[in-house]
Amino acid sequence: MQADHDIAAIVAATTAFVRREVLPVDDEHDGDIEAAGGETLRERLQSAARAEGLLSPHGPVDCGGLGLGMADRAPVFEAAGWSLFGPVALNINAPDEGNVHLLDNVASDPQRARYLAPLVSGQARSAFAMTEPAPGAGADPTMLTTTAAKVDGGWLVNGRKWFITGADGATFYIVMARTSGQPGAPGGATMFLAPSSAAGIEVVRHIETVDRSMLGGHCEMRFTDVFVADEDVLGGVDEGFRYAQVRLGPARMTHVMRWLGAASRAHEVAVRYAAGRPAFGGRLADLGMMQQMIADNEIDLAATRALLMEACRELDAGSRASESTSIAKTFAAEALHRVVDRATQMCGGLGVSRELPVARIAREIRPFRIYDGPSEVHRWSIARRAVRRVAGSEAS
Amino acid sequence: MQADHDIAAIVAATTAFVRREVLPVDDEHDGDIEAAGGETLRERLQSAARAEGLLSPHGPVDCGGLGLGMADRAPVFEAAGWSLFGPVALNINAPDEGNVHLLDNVASDPQRARYLAPLVSGQARSAFAMTEPAPGAGADPTMLTTTAAKVDGGWLVNGRKWFITGADGATFYIVMARTSGQPGAPGGATMFLAPSSAAGIEVVRHIETVDRSMLGGHCEMRFTDVFVADEDVLGGVDEGFRYAQVRLGPARMTHVMRWLGAASRAHEVAVRYAAGRPAFGGRLADLGMMQQMIADNEIDLAATRALLMEACRELDAGSRASESTSIAKTFAAEALHRVVDRATQMCGGLGVSRELPVARIAREIRPFRIYDGPSEVHRWSIARRAVRRVAGSEAS
Amino acid sequence: MQADHDIAAIVAATTAFVRREVLPVDDEHDGDIEAAGGETLRERLQSAARAEGLLSPHGPVDCGGLGLGMADRAPVFEAAGWSLFGPVALNINAPDEGNVHLLDNVASDPQRARYLAPLVSGQARSAFAMTEPAPGAGADPTMLTTTAAKVDGGWLVNGRKWFITGADGATFYIVMARTSGQPGAPGGATMFLAPSSAAGIEVVRHIETVDRSMLGGHCEMRFTDVFVADEDVLGGVDEGFRYAQVRLGPARMTHVMRWLGAASRAHEVAVRYAAGRPAFGGRLADLGMMQQMIADNEIDLAATRALLMEACRELDAGSRASESTSIAKTFAAEALHRVVDRATQMCGGLGVSRELPVARIAREIRPFRIYDGPSEVHRWSIARRAVRRVAGSEAS
Amino acid sequence: MQADHDIAAIVAATTAFVRREVLPVDDEHDGDIEAAGGETLRERLQSAARAEGLLSPHGPVDCGGLGLGMADRAPVFEAAGWSLFGPVALNINAPDEGNVHLLDNVASDPQRARYLAPLVSGQARSAFAMTEPAPGAGADPTMLTTTAAKVDGGWLVNGRKWFITGADGATFYIVMARTSGQPGAPGGATMFLAPSSAAGIEVVRHIETVDRSMLGGHCEMRFTDVFVADEDVLGGVDEGFRYAQVRLGPARMTHVMRWLGAASRAHEVAVRYAAGRPAFGGRLADLGMMQQMIADNEIDLAATRALLMEACRELDAGSRASESTSIAKTFAAEALHRVVDRATQMCGGLGVSRELPVARIAREIRPFRIYDGPSEVHRWSIARRAVRRVAGSEAS
Repeated sequence: MQADHDIAAIVAATTAFVRREVLPVDDEHDGDIEAAGGETLRERLQSAARAEGLLSPHGPVDCGGLGLGMADRAPVFEAAGWSLFGPVALNINAPDEGNVHLLDNVASDPQRARYLAPLVSGQARSAFAMTEPAPGAGADPTMLTTTAAKVDGGWLVNGRKWFITGADGATFYIVMARTSGQPGAPGGATMFLAPSSAAGIEVVRHIETVDRSMLGGHCEMRFTDVFVADEDVLGGVDEGFRYAQVRLGPARMTHVMRWLGAASRAHEVAVRYAAGRPAFGGRLADLGMMQQMIADNEIDLAATRALLMEACRELDAGSRASESTSIAKTFAAEALHRVVDRATQMCGGLGVSRELPVARIAREIRPFRIYDGPSEVHRWSIARRAVRRVAGSEAS
Repeated sequence: MQADHDIAAIVAATTAFVRREVLPVDDEHDGDIEAAGGETLRERLQSAARAEGLLSPHGPVDCGGLGLGMADRAPVFEAAGWSLFGPVALNINAPDEGNVHLLDNVASDPQRARYLAPLVSGQARSAFAMTEPAPGAGADPTMLTTTAAKVDGGWLVNGRKWFITGADGATFYIVMARTSGQPGAPGGATMFLAPSSAAGIEVVRHIETVDRSMLGGHCEMRFTDVFVADEDVLGGVDEGFRYAQVRLGPARMTHVMRWLGAASRAHEVAVRYAAGRPAFGGRLADLGMMQQMIADNEIDLAATRALLMEACRELDAGSRASESTSIAKTFAAEALHRVVDRATQMCGGLGVSRELPVARIAREIRPFRIYDGPSEVHRWSIARRAVRRVAGSEAS
Repeated sequence: MQADHDIAAIVAATTAFVRREVLPVDDEHDGDIEAAGGETLRERLQSAARAEGLLSPHGPVDCGGLGLGMADRAPVFEAAGWSLFGPVALNINAPDEGNVHLLDNVASDPQRARYLAPLVSGQARSAFAMTEPAPGAGADPTMLTTTAAKVDGGWLVNGRKWFITGADGATFYIVMARTSGQPGAPGGATMFLAPSSAAGIEVVRHIETVDRSMLGGHCEMRFTDVFVADEDVLGGVDEGFRYAQVRLGPARMTHVMRWLGAASRAHEVAVRYAAGRPAFGGRLADLGMMQQMIADNEIDLAATRALLMEACRELDAGSRASESTSIAKTFAAEALHRVVDRATQMCGGLGVSRELPVARIAREIRPFRIYDGPSEVHRWSIARRAVRRVAGSEAS
Repeated sequence: MQADHDIAAIVAATTAFVRREVLPVDDEHDGDIEAAGGETLRERLQSAARAEGLLSPHGPVDCGGLGLGMADRAPVFEAAGWSLFGPVALNINAPDEGNVHLLDNVASDPQRARYLAPLVSGQARSAFAMTEPAPGAGADPTMLTTTAAKVDGGWLVNGRKWFITGADGATFYIVMARTSGQPGAPGGATMFLAPSSAAGIEVVRHIETVDRSMLGGHCEMRFTDVFVADEDVLGGVDEGFRYAQVRLGPARMTHVMRWLGAASRAHEVAVRYAAGRPAFGGRLADLGMMQQMIADNEIDLAATRALLMEACRELDAGSRASESTSIAKTFAAEALHRVVDRATQMCGGLGVSRELPVARIAREIRPFRIYDGPSEVHRWSIARRAVRRVAGSEAS
């Protein structure tokens, strides 16, 4: 289904672009995207990427993207992730990137024209409004409490959402609301497309979190009698949880790709530091305990990459890949955290300072073990699958 | 040597004071001491602590402190550490606290009156100027490059220092400079007392680091022909490394005490969160993987406390306790980091936000695995001692 | 309550005795007690220990023991644990040692004379028959299915037990049986004293396990209409679970003491090996990764010892110490396993051979993470206590 | 180069064969191959495998093997590894399997006929005599001390070897001996083919190790003036270290394949146990801490498999794959050890008994972190490569 691309060339061009155009801005502003210009910066960087033909490598070809499959996009996204602003620059950042995938799979033709095309071209930004404050939808999505009530010609959406990444300044939202059933029961969720200009949508506040590289923040939102016309229902009514699954697997993997780039940079900076720093009569990099940290980083990076590629190949083959993406996400979030933590330790005092990018990457990567399913929720589902598999087979 | 104190009462009073007077400021300003008022805040909090008789529990009695020994101060410092601003409020923060110990052991009577007394009473702040940019004194202190040259009536100090905690705004500095030998050789360092008003002392800049609770920052300094009179030499000439050892053991342990408080708070906040949050048909706190994190935290906290108390008892008995303080520091820095990281994970999205204090404590505690000797340097010396011990004994 | 002992002298004498008399037998037979002589060996070693006044240091004084408290016995038991046969030689092995403690606290005077005294003097061996095959009492003791029915003048005990350590060859058993209530309910267990000669007691088989140093093996037993006279009920009827708790805390800690000795030996052997083996132009012990393993071992050993002593002091002060013994046991079982595993790794090919004692100690220590409560059950109870503590207090 | 095989069918047939013919013998004899019949067992099992067309799937086609490449043999070897005797049954056990690969690459045609063909057909067994007692060749192979001196028509080999797997009963040896240079210098090793019947070859003793499933043991050998004719020099003189590298990469990976099978079985047994065992009002497998262990096992197994397949694809593409095989071996040896250790823990008391195969697999797999390069040596080389790579590139 995907065009025949010279992936190595795209990776090389992306790498060069990111180091030349993006990294200096990132380094100057310590990865704080608002301080670096916010929306203005996004437009400038995306223009530059567009000019080099690197924008939206994942976007469908009919919308102007390169149409790369999962396995092909892995090294490209990793190259972009080398800078915290790289994903914004290439228009492959969460949540837009996952929304592109979702819309490409589910949107009607008019929705495709109105919502997907501008997202791929970089004219629009979007957010995915699913998680809610307690006791609503969190790690357990079936707790969904936001409702959509049928009215003439459409629906009225009411509810509160929070930790909605990119909400502030988004052009439109994909809102998950309950259209049947009760909180705690699985069925009954529907996805709605709502322009941010719609009456009743309010970005209440930014929830201040440790990371600062996500454009539009992590917001609390309120939906009060927001009218969504029938033609802006995304896919079928009561099919929301199923679509969320469609979005989920690839979105997990593109997170891994981007963070793999960031963690690789932290590692490289640390190795370079250790190789250049005299200590105890040699180089820091020649000491056994440093070598152990360097090797452990290499192993964690290689294992992350191997699991990622396995899952991407499964996704490209048309599988839902729930198991392999869950395993790859869980391993990656923890392994990359370890990589960056070791890089911090290797750099000593500079590792916890702004002098090097390592502390910043550590700050940004920490939440990855929590969002897109905390490691504990993934382990729970991995274990349940394993038990079912064994319980259904004969002893050996 | 130490007075007979009702430690439980001091701990209770400290706990109450910190929660009533200090914690609200800490929480309001997310542990950013400059944002919270800086020097003005310090004066206000210390006045309040003085009024309740809680200031300087570690200070020598003749200077107005409570004169608590190491084992006695452990629970008091831990209670203070519950807030990131607690140690400042009680005047037991690094580096002042370690400098009090050093001066109490080494200072002459006039130095005691001029430097130690105002430090204990909270009128003065100080800094300990030892570490230098590469290739100077870092993890390997013998690389010391700052020099002091003998001149008539005193010494001229020249050199660069960095990561000097609390330097900006300090009343005086204890400066380590080479008075004989070459970088890479052990002997030949001397400690000098220098008021910040002395000509030639310059705080070049703050090195921006991940933590924000240390008054006076972590600074780069330049000493240019700074004249120190003979009477401001601290202890004997060429005895600096030996005194640094005197300061080191207790200073390591008081760090552990303070961070034990902070980590305990992060843990308690997380347990409370998990106990109050419904999930999967029960409470979050009833899920096995949460219980594992809670139990691991309890174990890490208990082991840290046990190792700390062992080392404190050794110090109180007059030992240098190099081995036991090195082991306790290394274990504690890693265990407390794990505790706070698990607390973060337990709190989910809120764990990486400003809504709870956990993320802030994680940010502040990370450097502890690096300063006062990175874990790797401690392990190196612990291992070398173990090998010497075994190699010198018969087989069994 | 305990006599004033010169603990250092007892430790020194025990150390000397174990290395001279016990270790050679252990080394010759690779820690296999049956191969080394079994009951005959026990009698020989205990005679030698008796002759040196080292037998039963934990036994009550009126029965001929030294009457050491928990804190005092810690270093003595550790010294004995240096050899896998040391605890047998000193008559402080499980389960006899825990049974002595239990009887000392609960037995009537006639029971004391008939059962406790010969146990302390080494004339008798005993076993504690509690655990049962599924679905009976295991990690969850309330599943107890063995029953005791009241008959004239006594009780008839019926049921199956397994993993009964030391059962084969024991002089008598302490049998836990249900006297009221149903499996799954807490109350209703009673302890019975039954000589092995009683009709209806059968040692069905040895369950072959990885360890080979426990005299009498780990057995499956069958009790068929075993008559126990009223005067052989240990303590009150239906009080069995409470007594089991009395036995538990100290028994956990003496396990830790003994394994601390064994793990310390493995560590010392590995350090000696690394210090003596040339590699890569120096000694193995000078390589950073070896130093890391050596230091981690030192830290794990120190933390185990510190937690152990905290718990022992609590027990000596009369507390049940459920929390601190649970924490110390869990930490110790895992830490000592790590110590021995690192020792194995440090010794390379010899570490997995009979040439050194390390592999043997690894084999023997593995089950410690499982018996006396698997780590998971301990974590479960530690976490529940922590949640109760926090949930019952105000926020901070 | 490799035929077009229906790998899934071979895997299915191997799986069925192993469970039907091999596993019962393994289980009956607790994985002790000598107790199970030794050489006689080998002949019987290999006959059965031959009859089903499953023998020597890795062997070159002209010698009667199936000629599978590395990626293809991975699932087949894993299926064989499900039983500890599976690799013997299929004739794919170390060291024969690695020797087949080596001879296939280096042997002359006469050597191919005389040594390789009978090895592939199962008529011969072999051993690889490289490692020596200290201070000879161990983790550092350049310490080689065994020598071969040129004489008329051949060479005289002298030296001691140990930990030579499979030596007792082998038909011939591949002996590594120094033909130039000094111990500590790289060059100068040569490989020699020597029938066990040659004068001067002595199997001195079995070194007793923890594992018991390797036919022929781990032996100490003595070579005294062993004459090897010129035509039995394997490859070029002084090329031994280079050939050892040829053997190394694939041999590492086939170890991983076999142990992946064994660890997977331990995991499956544990999951089945947990799913069938009632506890605390549900099944053991429903408890969160059990689920965590199950999930961690799934993750470790998946990551091992992913790294293995990456390396196999590199090897199949003709690369030496030193980096990727080193990473995969190091990760696998540690991950599979963790898997089996968690399986042990999940099975409680049965996990350390002969009732289940888990304890036996734990015993057999432990040495894998040591042989074929201890993890520490691999980390050392991985780190050095990483430093070279970074030091040779520009900063970013």
